[in-house]
Amino acid sequence: MKLSAMIGFLAALPSALALWPIPRTLTQGTSNTQAALVTINVQGNSSPVVTSAISRYQKLINGESFVAPADYKRGIVKTAGSLSCLTVTIKSADETLGLHTDESYTLDVPVNGTATLKAQSPYGVVRGLETFSQLVTGNGYSKAILNTPIHIEDSPVYPHRGLSFDTSRNFYSVNSILRILDAMAYNKMNTFHWHVVDAHSWPIESKSIPGLHQKGAYSSSMTYYYADVKRIIQYAKERGIRVIPEFDVPGHTYIVGQTKPEIMSCTNKLPNWDHFAAEPPSGQLNIAKPESIEFTNTIISEYTKLFPDNVFHLGGDEVNRNCWTEDPDVQKYLAAHPGEDVESLLVNFYTKVHDYLETTGKTAYTWEETLFHSKYVPNNSTILQVWIDQASVQKAVAQGYRVVSSSYDAYYLDCGHGAWLPNWDGNSWCDPFKTWMHVYNYDVAANITDPAQKKLILGTEVALWSEQSDEHVIDGRLWPRASAMAETAWSGKMDASGHVRTTGEVASRLHEQRYRMVGRGINAEPMQPLWCARNPGACNLP
Amino acid sequence: MKLSAMIGFLAALPSALALWPIPRTLTQGTSNTQAALVTINVQGNSSPVVTSAISRYQKLINGESFVAPADYKRGIVKTAGSLSCLTVTIKSADETLGLHTDESYTLDVPVNGTATLKAQSPYGVVRGLETFSQLVTGNGYSKAILNTPIHIEDSPVYPHRGLSFDTSRNFYSVNSILRILDAMAYNKMNTFHWHVVDAHSWPIESKSIPGLHQKGAYSSSMTYYYADVKRIIQYAKERGIRVIPEFDVPGHTYIVGQTKPEIMSCTNKLPNWDHFAAEPPSGQLNIAKPESIEFTNTIISEYTKLFPDNVFHLGGDEVNRNCWTEDPDVQKYLAAHPGEDVESLLVNFYTKVHDYLETTGKTAYTWEETLFHSKYVPNNSTILQVWIDQASVQKAVAQGYRVVSSSYDAYYLDCGHGAWLPNWDGNSWCDPFKTWMHVYNYDVAANITDPAQKKLILGTEVALWSEQSDEHVIDGRLWPRASAMAETAWSGKMDASGHVRTTGEVASRLHEQRYRMVGRGINAEPMQPLWCARNPGACNLP
Repeated sequence: MKLSAMIGFLAALPSALALWPIPRTLTQGTSNTQAALVTINVQGNSSPVVTSAISRYQKLINGESFVAPADYKRGIVKTAGSLSCLTVTIKSADETLGLHTDESYTLDVPVNGTATLKAQSPYGVVRGLETFSQLVTGNGYSKAILNTPIHIEDSPVYPHRGLSFDTSRNFYSVNSILRILDAMAYNKMNTFHWHVVDAHSWPIESKSIPGLHQKGAYSSSMTYYYADVKRIIQYAKERGIRVIPEFDVPGHTYIVGQTKPEIMSCTNKLPNWDHFAAEPPSGQLNIAKPESIEFTNTIISEYTKLFPDNVFHLGGDEVNRNCWTEDPDVQKYLAAHPGEDVESLLVNFYTKVHDYLETTGKTAYTWEETLFHSKYVPNNSTILQVWIDQASVQKAVAQGYRVVSSSYDAYYLDCGHGAWLPNWDGNSWCDPFKTWMHVYNYDVAANITDPAQKKLILGTEVALWSEQSDEHVIDGRLWPRASAMAETAWSGKMDASGHVRTTGEVASRLHEQRYRMVGRGINAEPMQPLWCARNPGACNLP
Repeated sequence: MKLSAMIGFLAALPSALALWPIPRTLTQGTSNTQAALVTINVQGNSSPVVTSAISRYQKLINGESFVAPADYKRGIVKTAGSLSCLTVTIKSADETLGLHTDESYTLDVPVNGTATLKAQSPYGVVRGLETFSQLVTGNGYSKAILNTPIHIEDSPVYPHRGLSFDTSRNFYSVNSILRILDAMAYNKMNTFHWHVVDAHSWPIESKSIPGLHQKGAYSSSMTYYYADVKRIIQYAKERGIRVIPEFDVPGHTYIVGQTKPEIMSCTNKLPNWDHFAAEPPSGQLNIAKPESIEFTNTIISEYTKLFPDNVFHLGGDEVNRNCWTEDPDVQKYLAAHPGEDVESLLVNFYTKVHDYLETTGKTAYTWEETLFHSKYVPNNSTILQVWIDQASVQKAVAQGYRVVSSSYDAYYLDCGHGAWLPNWDGNSWCDPFKTWMHVYNYDVAANITDPAQKKLILGTEVALWSEQSDEHVIDGRLWPRASAMAETAWSGKMDASGHVRTTGEVASRLHEQRYRMVGRGINAEPMQPLWCARNPGACNLP
């Protein structure tokens, strides 16, 4: 096929197909339906999440004037009928959020009359309303839904579609986090993995050890107080998003030493921080001291109560052995305890804190190093977050662990901004920049064929480490690249016919999603000149 | 010296030194001066630019509460005196902006009493007030200037310190351009090279050929009407910034074909656009047609009147020969004119349009290819904009041309975002990302030793091509990396003692400038974790 012919075809793509992420199954007609005054009603069972979602999407739809860039010449379409009402029904009002939450929904939009949205759970309604809102397009001074009647049956391929987000290296206001949650919902993402603390700051209030935030937050105004955290969790819940906090131990903990210097090793070693840590400032909990375990368990005890999700992340990444082998206290301990070594101390640390976490009823979530770079063997309910390479995903599922992949080579959205050590004019370790095409092309299930092992893949998380980001630039860093992951995690890599979707095919839909997000107040970055967005295919590589 | 000792030293750096760009000479004392109610007065001569600058900086200083990140523990300083007044004097009220504009100023801030700012021209006042505003820091509920008395004598090393800015590939609202001009003034940049049109859109109103914007702008709301352009020029002037427009010919002109298809070659060739252009859509003025020259001269005639600057950019980059050699019209013309070829046609085109430009009294500014990749020899008043490599700078000055460098390898701030052709998961041709350190380390005068040749270097321009940028992400794309160029162009590479400044040394000042810009509403990107900004040197590579 000649490209010019293909462009004609692409430009004629019906807007009902331009949903992001694309539904699992969709059939559509050839009529258009007026949608200026659609009232959303619930029939039967309801729930606070449903009520909140309806109120939110009612506003969004009422204000919608969005027209996709590829449709810029469309003009006003004739409508064959008009939609007065969208009726929502749920089977269960259970609002529990977790890996087993049912997000499926069925949406019917007739040419005329009443649309219906049916879901098993309140969260299926949240997803279905997002789909419905994406169907509504500006039509002159009115609104329309194109290509009716429409029938959609939809549900996610993976139950875990997340963003791993670092609020320690630089601070993000509560409002900027709420905006991120909005955008996640626009992309049907459902997990906010909050990497809340790290070496640089401890921005979350601690009631059990108040010094942590009093001395560790960048300032009192750069602190997430309990009320802020609860607000974020509630806001996320209303959008079907779980909030999984991470308290990373024993590495990445320099800031703890501002309050508890007595449980630290290798605090802020200079100039040779690189001998002790992946980045400055160095500092790890001293695993030879039982007080480090007590400290961690205090943290677990406090924050497992604050965060309702049944998964709790314990970090465990980038632990540096030199930090301990060169620590005089650790050396003294080991001299007095023949038969022990740094590895056995680390196993003891992980055992104690993971065992304690288990007593709280929570499931442990942990970076892959906890298993692969230590002698500790987490119990099989533990979820591993892989970031190093695809081989780690394969190894983890082969050993029976449930896995989420944040492969740095595909999903580290902070990468490609070059090094950030001011006296070094070099690249970043994780260059180059991960384009949306690169994000989209990653397949978390690559090289895994055993169906039992495949089942252990829970999903994926893009990650944003904040060395070079803060709330002033975050929208463009995340969007629309996180959207690319969101579609592969919701819709999968293949369409119903088994065809693996290509970036060339989906670009036009992603443009539409990018401009839709901008219309909704998210400062997503443009993928191309607007001319290319308006002329699908014309800016493809031959 | 141990780094920990050095950190102590760096942290104690007096704030008067933390100016960006750093003044040529500065002496300071050990007192601090209260600066809560400073009135700025002009003594003797004044001018509208001076009046506007005083009003602007009076507001800025009145609202200032900024404290540098490295000073976060400073607390309230004791003041030994108080400043009531800043008195401004100028020698000449001449407001002509150009390469010979005198931007020098002398600033004296005593411990007590009245500060003085003396300048040759209104634009020296603009620069001096920026410096003065950077001296004012929040001090509890009041304001202070630290390390008084201060004496500054300052002037730029290069007269051309610019930003080359593309508003064709994606559109930028007038407000977003004004914000860029604000930020340029905060960094003492003085040239807005407005790459206003390109292949993708023609966003500027044309009164002589209205079809150009009517058919070529992305929409009527994405058009710079005359009133908008005049507003931008005036706003820039008040900040001592020249606006040099570029109308790029004969390449990068696809959009002209929407109005004048009869003067185009190789319009939007698909799928093999890459055979005809550096990026899609392809299209160049047909140089075999005298109407192309007429068209260009009409454009020159119109816009040399709209833009008052005495320099006018004619583009000339990335001309593609295949576009013409494979054009049937060009082939027909050449068959009928033995002895001519594409090269002679191009020389004829450049001769005619450059000669015409000369009749308007303007100086031609042109991309290096006009000289180096064609047989045309521009006259010696022409300014060449080099972008390919340092060898081009050397060649150009060796041939007696005045030069501005926008070396892509140092100054293309759009690079490093990966490819943008949706069906290709690759890097961009100009990867990697240009870090601020990389920008800072570039030396436009490298390998040029002859003083006469050095004099031909007018300065530098960072460039922002907008394939992957628009107003939603622009602040972070430009700042603080453009600030890095701004200092090297204003202050030069070396301090008064001949020491070449290093990025490790200047990082703390640039952090301060970045946070100052954020405080002033510019969403500049963070260079590092705030912890690093607060602890100068602690995040350096050992």
